[in-house]
Amino acid sequence: MSRKNRLAQEDLIIRCGTLITMVPENPILRDTQIHVSNGFITSIEPAPEDYPSQGYGKEFIDAGDCLVMPGLINSHTHAAMSMFRGLADDMPLKEWLFKKIFPAEAEHLSPHNVYWAAMLAFVEMIQSGTTCFSDGYFYQDSTMEAAQAIGIRGVVGQGVIDFPAPGIPDPSKNLDEALAFVRRWKRSGSLLSPSLFCHSPVTCSERTLKGAMEICKSEHISMQIHLAETIEEVRGIVQEHGKRPAEYLHELGILNESLIAVHCVHLERREIALLRESGTRVVHCPESNMKLASGVCPVGQILAMGITLGLGTDGCASNNDLDMFTEMDTAAKLAKVFSYDPTALKAWEVMKAATLGGARVLGLDSEIGTVEAGKKADIIVLDLDKPHLQPLYDPVSTIVYSAKGSDVRDVVIDGKAVMRNRELMTVDTEEVMRKVWEIAREIK
Amino acid sequence: MSRKNRLAQEDLIIRCGTLITMVPENPILRDTQIHVSNGFITSIEPAPEDYPSQGYGKEFIDAGDCLVMPGLINSHTHAAMSMFRGLADDMPLKEWLFKKIFPAEAEHLSPHNVYWAAMLAFVEMIQSGTTCFSDGYFYQDSTMEAAQAIGIRGVVGQGVIDFPAPGIPDPSKNLDEALAFVRRWKRSGSLLSPSLFCHSPVTCSERTLKGAMEICKSEHISMQIHLAETIEEVRGIVQEHGKRPAEYLHELGILNESLIAVHCVHLERREIALLRESGTRVVHCPESNMKLASGVCPVGQILAMGITLGLGTDGCASNNDLDMFTEMDTAAKLAKVFSYDPTALKAWEVMKAATLGGARVLGLDSEIGTVEAGKKADIIVLDLDKPHLQPLYDPVSTIVYSAKGSDVRDVVIDGKAVMRNRELMTVDTEEVMRKVWEIAREIK
Repeated sequence: MSRKNRLAQEDLIIRCGTLITMVPENPILRDTQIHVSNGFITSIEPAPEDYPSQGYGKEFIDAGDCLVMPGLINSHTHAAMSMFRGLADDMPLKEWLFKKIFPAEAEHLSPHNVYWAAMLAFVEMIQSGTTCFSDGYFYQDSTMEAAQAIGIRGVVGQGVIDFPAPGIPDPSKNLDEALAFVRRWKRSGSLLSPSLFCHSPVTCSERTLKGAMEICKSEHISMQIHLAETIEEVRGIVQEHGKRPAEYLHELGILNESLIAVHCVHLERREIALLRESGTRVVHCPESNMKLASGVCPVGQILAMGITLGLGTDGCASNNDLDMFTEMDTAAKLAKVFSYDPTALKAWEVMKAATLGGARVLGLDSEIGTVEAGKKADIIVLDLDKPHLQPLYDPVSTIVYSAKGSDVRDVVIDGKAVMRNRELMTVDTEEVMRKVWEIAREIK
Repeated sequence: MSRKNRLAQEDLIIRCGTLITMVPENPILRDTQIHVSNGFITSIEPAPEDYPSQGYGKEFIDAGDCLVMPGLINSHTHAAMSMFRGLADDMPLKEWLFKKIFPAEAEHLSPHNVYWAAMLAFVEMIQSGTTCFSDGYFYQDSTMEAAQAIGIRGVVGQGVIDFPAPGIPDPSKNLDEALAFVRRWKRSGSLLSPSLFCHSPVTCSERTLKGAMEICKSEHISMQIHLAETIEEVRGIVQEHGKRPAEYLHELGILNESLIAVHCVHLERREIALLRESGTRVVHCPESNMKLASGVCPVGQILAMGITLGLGTDGCASNNDLDMFTEMDTAAKLAKVFSYDPTALKAWEVMKAATLGGARVLGLDSEIGTVEAGKKADIIVLDLDKPHLQPLYDPVSTIVYSAKGSDVRDVVIDGKAVMRNRELMTVDTEEVMRKVWEIAREIK
């Protein structure tokens, strides 16, 4: 078959100037072409001298003078909380939660509102180069539907908490509802998968935690939990159970390779060792931990132990954005000042946490996290021809320390171009903003 | 005079949807028009129902559905270091300075290179809403010329150091050269003013520090100095002089209302008291302090003492950008996690440091820092109609925690629109990037 004929059968070709693959042996390639078919990367080849003209592939992205890299993976968020962005800041944590966020959730969460607020979050994610997210919240059918409509990849966790919760007024039904959610969405296609999100070891009982883990084990899905986010939480667990948080979960049989432990701010060395031995994966949310004054996750120790690390923005109410580029920047800088070591969490390491690390956290590393043949085509293109990104000595440094979400030009998810030249192809962003604006008017 | 005739004599009218004035008594105004004449804000009036048509004012900026605010003031930077952006990261501080930055400066600084690299920095500043900067470096005639050409406001400090320095091979001439620089630029117009930048109490002798302050006093200009940036610097001063850094400067007679102390990371309470008593002004550079693992400036204590505080990005080699919006975000979050207090450095306080605080640091608060009649028109317009800025409950929260430099649409400096719809009106940005790219090729 001639090259021309072969190209004609591709769905998408991306011409790359600089390609950061995130494959350790071959991290940076120059002047290549990525060939995509049926959502998969079929090959990465040296760029031919000529450019394919119209009709070669079904779609052609010319990133010949751009930087191309794997889509970013936001390993922890609460998408629909975008409706509360900027509603309450600079407040004591308890007042923020109990006087602002919980009442607003109780009053304003509904399938309709969660759908549109999650959609707004997905628009923001795609516009800032995130192609996959891991979410934990309520009314998650709506989050799933919004993700389906826009075409973003994700793991959607049904919230589990031992209080009356949005959509689950009777907490004794929280696991039944969660299991029903998992079964509804388990075979919903290649982009989306369900998960459970147990709020925390303080807000979920032993029985709930164990029951949730049983569901996750039998359904082969992951369980997310906020762990050791605040000193108060740690104190409460020590007081009630006589153990540190990770020790407590270990005793319950919850610490294992199905668990995604989010935050992990206040962990002692022996708890980090427990996470490693159990195969528990960790997600770091530096900006949220900073804004809520929770503390600083010891990412240096966690990585040194060989624990799988992902990066997340947390929800918009405690960040207040979903830009994984600025999250990488902050993560790298915070690790340095926290450890008084300017070599801590190097640019490559934080970029790995935001790509391949996140894929491993979500159990999706055979599919995404790198740009290489055989993987799904979740790929983003950055336009580097901008004053704040010049000069360019080291593309990884530029990505982490200088680039912002607004520098992303094109986004491909599962082989489909969902954003071209910063324009979303799958939803009407004006409509999304209008809908959320209407919700915000009620909240205000 | 009819309203129409009066409008015709204005240079510029800005129609504002939401105007953050930064005037404490009247911080936020809705639906106003700013009238600008000869570089000054002449009045702020309720917006008339009709829009002025072409020819009313000389220029009309329709920000009727936008947010308008004072231009940001970057109170500490080394503009020309943009040529080293991303050249060396994630390295031990001494290796970074002595193996990378100092050799690169020794080899590659020249009037030509400083001109174009400073110009690149000014393009980035204006594109991200900074209308005034305070700089310290060498070959500062070039920095002045670049600032003049692009039309940005600034205070340009001639570097003073007791080593052979770029442009000043004989350190015994450093103060003579500095005085000559000051006299060359002292009456160069309303936008730019000279200053001295003494590198640090470690790299400048007692004699040099005293001599520099004498010049500053007699010429009525400010003196910038890096103070207590690293633990090593503090140790060195304690070892050599038997005093903490601020005490040492106090003894030399350097701590006074002409001094701008930058960084102030490792200060004890009694040193902060000395800063307050002496009227010394402080500049906080959180991202640089984080990236170089220097430590965290105790901004809470500094503000509580009533010390004037500005915010700076530092140079591009240790940040690696000049975006004052992300700097505000990081400053607010870092102060919170550092003090374990989520109410520390509230959005309004950090926005004040980046506007009126910076103006006070630079002694320019009678001219800039707020949007009010009688001040110079240094004004920026943000387009908030973007997914990551929606919904909008509190514009100050949105500015600090969600907005980025790339959300700035228009920039007015000294009454002149230097950026419209993100396009710079005064320089050819393509040419600037090309020139710096040529310099970077030599450096690489």
